[in-house]
Amino acid sequence: MQRLTFWFEYGSTYTWLSVARIDALAQAHGAQIEWRPFLLSAILKQRGMVEGPFAEPVKGRYMWRDLERRAARHGIAYRKPTVYLPNTLLTARIGTLAAVQGWCEPFTREVFRLHWTEDVGIGTDDNLRRALTAVGKSPEQVLQAAQSESTKQLLRAATDEAEALGVFGSPSFTVGEEVFWGDDRLEDALDFAAGRLLPATGR
Amino acid sequence: MQRLTFWFEYGSTYTWLSVARIDALAQAHGAQIEWRPFLLSAILKQRGMVEGPFAEPVKGRYMWRDLERRAARHGIAYRKPTVYLPNTLLTARIGTLAAVQGWCEPFTREVFRLHWTEDVGIGTDDNLRRALTAVGKSPEQVLQAAQSESTKQLLRAATDEAEALGVFGSPSFTVGEEVFWGDDRLEDALDFAAGRLLPATGR
Repeated sequence: MQRLTFWFEYGSTYTWLSVARIDALAQAHGAQIEWRPFLLSAILKQRGMVEGPFAEPVKGRYMWRDLERRAARHGIAYRKPTVYLPNTLLTARIGTLAAVQGWCEPFTREVFRLHWTEDVGIGTDDNLRRALTAVGKSPEQVLQAAQSESTKQLLRAATDEAEALGVFGSPSFTVGEEVFWGDDRLEDALDFAAGRLLPATGR
Repeated sequence: MQRLTFWFEYGSTYTWLSVARIDALAQAHGAQIEWRPFLLSAILKQRGMVEGPFAEPVKGRYMWRDLERRAARHGIAYRKPTVYLPNTLLTARIGTLAAVQGWCEPFTREVFRLHWTEDVGIGTDDNLRRALTAVGKSPEQVLQAAQSESTKQLLRAATDEAEALGVFGSPSFTVGEEVFWGDDRLEDALDFAAGRLLPATGR
């Protein structure tokens, strides 16, 4: 079983489905998951791609409907948040610090849970403080550390690493050099990591 | 069981997966499928959306790799075609005529099969003549009828109908006013048609 990296942007809607699903699926597959936040907007800007692909009204309405249907299919709690798109820069910096220090997963899980089930918006002071407190961290200390130059640099490096791998959306899952994009490819990624999804043809 | 409409653009890559899968899945679900071609480019232009969403190099490479992985997962024959994007206007006109006359499904199946397993490109004279002959039609007669003003108008009307339903990509599946986009939502659409995917919240 190869290691799987879960690349995510805190502001991504469909990422909530993966945050809610990945733990049980990884356990069922015997997979080890590394949680890695990055800044999707930086990659999209770099590549000249549309930011907020669901800003177009018809596609936007579709996305929200699809999201609630997918949540229902998977039995995931869902409440449409008031704010979209949230400002995720500070949360991503804290997540990056957390990834280095080993508490990214529980922190991120709580950030998303608050946003997607209690409408405590990602990026707000309330969301950050409650999520930090829930994982036993001091909000003041962490918020200070997250604004340090070294943390900012870590997030830039993580984003560069994601981009170098060919990541252009969230959630993405990488296994070695293989990229899988979208919550609906999580099972493919896990199967690939277990050596069970190997197309005959090459790239 | 509600009726499901399968809206498709002949030039769409992922649509090959649905063309290859839908028959067996519909039978398993006891679903009736209506095959309806439309012109995706007309809708994208109208909405100011990107044509050829996979023209961006990194996203394009990803799409081809994902496509072959999905084909492998579903046991679908796959050979990367030489030409992308094909010119699908004439094929769509014939498909529209076929939809009215009741032979759209076998014709479309053969058009896609030739393109995706034998590299006989969609939109080429060879593809059209072979597909028409395979379903027992006279290529000369059909090609003439497909260029008539009434057939052109039928295709425009089908595209307008798809757009009015909120379709913005291919494949799409509609059940009443409910839209599902992408081959990876085909099972959702069939479940919805059978009354098995009903989120608690409204739109």
